[in-house]
Amino acid sequence: MRMSQYFLPTMKENPAEAQIVSHRLMLRAGLVRQTSAGIYAWLPLGFRVLKNIERIVREEQDASGAQEVLMPTIQSAELWRESGRYDDYGEEMLRIKDRQGREMLYGPTNEEMITVLFRDGVKSYRDLPRNLYHIQWKFRDEVRPRFGVMRGREFLMKDNYSFDIDKAGAIRSYNKMFVAYLRTFARMGLKAIPMRADTGPIGGDLSHEFIVLADTGESAVFCHKGLVDKDILARKIDYSGDLQPVVDEWTSLYAATDEMHDKAAFEKIPEGERLAARGIEVGHIFYFGTKYSTPMNAVVAGPKGEQVTVEMGSYGIGVSRLVGGIIEASHDEAGIVWPESVAPFKVAILNLKPDDGAVSATCGKLYDALRAKKIEVLHDDRDIRPGGKFADMDLIGTPWQVIVGPKGVAAGKAEFKNRKTGVREEVPFDQVVSRLA
Amino acid sequence: MRMSQYFLPTMKENPAEAQIVSHRLMLRAGLVRQTSAGIYAWLPLGFRVLKNIERIVREEQDASGAQEVLMPTIQSAELWRESGRYDDYGEEMLRIKDRQGREMLYGPTNEEMITVLFRDGVKSYRDLPRNLYHIQWKFRDEVRPRFGVMRGREFLMKDNYSFDIDKAGAIRSYNKMFVAYLRTFARMGLKAIPMRADTGPIGGDLSHEFIVLADTGESAVFCHKGLVDKDILARKIDYSGDLQPVVDEWTSLYAATDEMHDKAAFEKIPEGERLAARGIEVGHIFYFGTKYSTPMNAVVAGPKGEQVTVEMGSYGIGVSRLVGGIIEASHDEAGIVWPESVAPFKVAILNLKPDDGAVSATCGKLYDALRAKKIEVLHDDRDIRPGGKFADMDLIGTPWQVIVGPKGVAAGKAEFKNRKTGVREEVPFDQVVSRLA
Repeated sequence: MRMSQYFLPTMKENPAEAQIVSHRLMLRAGLVRQTSAGIYAWLPLGFRVLKNIERIVREEQDASGAQEVLMPTIQSAELWRESGRYDDYGEEMLRIKDRQGREMLYGPTNEEMITVLFRDGVKSYRDLPRNLYHIQWKFRDEVRPRFGVMRGREFLMKDNYSFDIDKAGAIRSYNKMFVAYLRTFARMGLKAIPMRADTGPIGGDLSHEFIVLADTGESAVFCHKGLVDKDILARKIDYSGDLQPVVDEWTSLYAATDEMHDKAAFEKIPEGERLAARGIEVGHIFYFGTKYSTPMNAVVAGPKGEQVTVEMGSYGIGVSRLVGGIIEASHDEAGIVWPESVAPFKVAILNLKPDDGAVSATCGKLYDALRAKKIEVLHDDRDIRPGGKFADMDLIGTPWQVIVGPKGVAAGKAEFKNRKTGVREEVPFDQVVSRLA
Repeated sequence: MRMSQYFLPTMKENPAEAQIVSHRLMLRAGLVRQTSAGIYAWLPLGFRVLKNIERIVREEQDASGAQEVLMPTIQSAELWRESGRYDDYGEEMLRIKDRQGREMLYGPTNEEMITVLFRDGVKSYRDLPRNLYHIQWKFRDEVRPRFGVMRGREFLMKDNYSFDIDKAGAIRSYNKMFVAYLRTFARMGLKAIPMRADTGPIGGDLSHEFIVLADTGESAVFCHKGLVDKDILARKIDYSGDLQPVVDEWTSLYAATDEMHDKAAFEKIPEGERLAARGIEVGHIFYFGTKYSTPMNAVVAGPKGEQVTVEMGSYGIGVSRLVGGIIEASHDEAGIVWPESVAPFKVAILNLKPDDGAVSATCGKLYDALRAKKIEVLHDDRDIRPGGKFADMDLIGTPWQVIVGPKGVAAGKAEFKNRKTGVREEVPFDQVVSRLA
């Protein structure tokens, strides 16, 4: 993409309303704009990041055997009366009356709706297990929306729901999601640590939060340092096999959020291996048995023809929240430092002298060559001074920068910069593409 | 995907509530389920079709130079007061009060919001033209939602908005969308004919509807037969060049919807070349000048520093509606006949005897071989009788069927069926993949 033609309004100053670094950087780098309190529009650059995160979430869900559906945002109040949650949910639920006076709501989550879809579509134990997910906008009418997309009102969530014939099956489904979540966050360059969690309004008796460590995190967390060093991507995962050993390995070491913290247990860890830090919740998984299937009558015929109430779990990832979470975990003084897997563009070309024909021709050739190799490239061809380009590109945070000026053109070399390390080297123009491919 | 593991609840009977064929077939083939009046959940099979349509729309928008953003579903009433449309819009607008008592609404379209985003982000004529699109859920509170996803209340729309410095630029932007729309619908296997249209509540003075011909269409349309034979995909399109000749070619022949019909002009066409038919609107494009930019003060600095009010257009495609529209245009007595470009799976394997080891082994090998070539395949491995499999697969409508039974296995051949023509041939197992690749 050529920046001269791109809708990418960056800001030099820190916006006054942004209290945390990810919010500041998302506004300054032109990723989002607030359109109402706690509601954001995603501009082209932010949209690309959001789509990359969504793609990784989708790939890992599909690999685990979950099947994608898409439920609507607007639900009927009737559905929530069936489970008994309509009156309990409180003011965070955005309640709506349609033109016929029917009570509706903007879905904050989908346990009820998916239970009805399952109940109407699945009749036999032979059709179990099932795990259905969707990636859809949700609304929670936070009393004080803040921190940009980290605590917005309209947000994109991946939520899924598992259905099993018995508790053992439900735990297998839970374990699949546990492992899929570890993989999902690791692929985004995040250290996400599963922590035993309170089940809250979802209910149930087994639950883990996945917490990304970041100095600017919203809550205090406590864990064994060994968890930080584990690498799920180095394991070979077979979703049709037994995942309990992997789950056990990750849950055998102490890890808890503030609210579940057991000081005595934590202090049994040798002092040098204790980690007291701050974290951001990016995922949450629940096993809640028949909490919804019983009141909503989600039953299947068992092997002997008997009626069996299905065992359920639900699993959420805050897709739009992750954009903020990744920035909280990966930035520096100059701006965002995107992990390659979610970066809006892998590389940027900085044309330092657009009015110099040779420089612009070289940049144009590099741009075409990178695009021919399907490498996503942002080309700063704007007619502004080099200082502004350096500042904007560090702010935007593409993993690589290819800097081209008159001296480099004379020498046949680009300056090749790693955004994360800051290391610059001179690379001959004809090697730039192969360095990035 | 193995059907034994797939959430695909098909129905044998025609559902009583469905009045039109696409609605009946979408329910019967397990594409969607209604969750409230005019609101649908997309089950896995329907979701795949929706995503294929979305992908084609996106590819053609990107090719035309439009840039993707994502605006939220919930908007503030203030925004619509700026343009003066809040009070005009009527009861189709779903109006909402949040917990603070602020007036909000579920966006039925986005002219106001995009104008604000543009106004805040673009300051100079040098940054024009811009064309921004998004693919997002909309809500229109239809008084009598019906015809399934063809006239639902919550629906997925691609809408975009162009911004130009003058009318000539705006017409160039309009022409790009005109051609992009022709290509978009043609790639979906549709004959979509642009027809001069009333501008309605969007306003403006130039507008075309894109109408798919289908016997079951909602409205009467009149056109020159020559339009049906034109093939935009055979042309080489250069979006940076002059597209006026292409637009002129498509608009020089008579075409009008009922409401714009000019009987006298129509009857000047030689009788054998007149086509009076029925059609379904799948897209609508508008040039409306400064209708929104004037009240909302969307101005940029012109070449001499003067303030110029930008010229705008908007362009919509009913993405979820297209699923129904394609079925209306492509089905037979037995079920849906998907064009390959949008089919949920390109091919289905029908295992006629799952309890026969040799048959199942052959099907399993074919399934793996097709997947290895990234060919999307649905494998009917269910333990039901062949008659049910034939009926279900004709209903579901994959373009190709590979039918495998004991006789075929003995002879080393599959029956290879074209869903559209019904033609069956015997194909050696080792040639099945190459026939589909």
